Amino acid sequence: MTNETATGRLYGLGTGPGDPELLTLKAVRVLAQVAVVAHFAKRGNPSNARAIITAHLRAGVIELPLLYPVTTELDRHDPDYKAQIGAFYEQAAADVAAHLDAGRDVAVLSEGDPLFYGSYMHLHVRLAARYPTEVIPGVTSMSGAWSLAGAPIAQGDDVLAVLPGTLPEEELARRLSSVDAAVIMKVGRNLPRIRRALVSAGRLDRAIYVERATCADARAEPMATRDSRPAPYFSIVLVPGWA
Amino acid sequence: MTNETATGRLYGLGTGPGDPELLTLKAVRVLAQVAVVAHFAKRGNPSNARAIITAHLRAGVIELPLLYPVTTELDRHDPDYKAQIGAFYEQAAADVAAHLDAGRDVAVLSEGDPLFYGSYMHLHVRLAARYPTEVIPGVTSMSGAWSLAGAPIAQGDDVLAVLPGTLPEEELARRLSSVDAAVIMKVGRNLPRIRRALVSAGRLDRAIYVERATCADARAEPMATRDSRPAPYFSIVLVPGWA
Repeated sequence: MTNETATGRLYGLGTGPGDPELLTLKAVRVLAQVAVVAHFAKRGNPSNARAIITAHLRAGVIELPLLYPVTTELDRHDPDYKAQIGAFYEQAAADVAAHLDAGRDVAVLSEGDPLFYGSYMHLHVRLAARYPTEVIPGVTSMSGAWSLAGAPIAQGDDVLAVLPGTLPEEELARRLSSVDAAVIMKVGRNLPRIRRALVSAGRLDRAIYVERATCADARAEPMATRDSRPAPYFSIVLVPGWA
Repeated sequence: MTNETATGRLYGLGTGPGDPELLTLKAVRVLAQVAVVAHFAKRGNPSNARAIITAHLRAGVIELPLLYPVTTELDRHDPDYKAQIGAFYEQAAADVAAHLDAGRDVAVLSEGDPLFYGSYMHLHVRLAARYPTEVIPGVTSMSGAWSLAGAPIAQGDDVLAVLPGTLPEEELARRLSSVDAAVIMKVGRNLPRIRRALVSAGRLDRAIYVERATCADARAEPMATRDSRPAPYFSIVLVPGWA
């Protein structure tokens, strides 16, 4: 006898920062069990998170790509952008919910850790109250970055700040000056501004630039000698607290 | 023919926050390979990190417990405390180095992530320049905490601060007021002061108290209703940024 009313279970599944070996045992077990694997991607671009777990995609699994709308011509503070992104997350949540309603367990992949700056959060806030939900934490991209660089990021009573590279230069400099250690995310085209903020804060000499941490082509180098070529969006700047 | 001059390889191995299923595949592989597993512990107290990896300790592995000196009667800013702890890390590094010199690979266990507030860092800074070294990142205790609580901690351009609960009340309140999201570590007997700082900063209603995240007896509850019973040292308070 089947239970017609049982819904599926939602998993927010952290894949870690890139190296498939940094998947957790729990993530691997859940991937072997779920009926549906959902992943965010840009149209025409493969999903990084899916690439990380490819070896663990079981035969017969249903894949549910959640394709971001094309919004490259819009600023992220533009009301049109916000409306399009909001509608996209609503639709993505509805697509996931349809599988859960049909009794199928769904794992939503999230690069790094699901509740730390991840798109999964937008589904979590829409679905977690309505379906049994479990979040499987993952290794963050920043842990991948300081591990690659071999840089002890914080110890003892250090205060650590995680700062988006999109902050205005003055604010970035002020915040860098007021903490023991910092991680600057979303570097990309903000690199020149981040460099100026590090100089203002007297932190340039400590700072480390990290690109594609834990991937085969990962590299870490001092910010002081990093040239001005464009940086990938997901590169990271570390300011370790260790004296 | 053996290579008499080859030294062993040092691994800083993150075990994740407590649930043995949150070990990474890489940590499990390395545990199956190394000759020596070292772990920090207090005399008479089992090592948490060792407990997490027990199922993966291979037969015949050499265990190297690194026992913290007994310093309960000393303040951590006391020069005697600093001298004793410094001497302890020197000796621990020498003990690990002896195995590396003998050509044996050594994995030093670190609960959570090795370079994020972990004791492993004290060995890393003493040994990484002298021996081939690799850091295997792990899931942090804070990721474990917000995943258990199902609380999206930060998104988009949020600024996140990691704050030790040992900070003075005024500084804690000021820092809590100036960020979008925060994680307060080392709660323990600092809980009443942390609560007062959250009230000053107008953040009490958002705050979540988490105890023993990802262990079997884990619990999360609103700080606003958390009673005043003592908190374990490794409990965490989260102030999610999601509005």
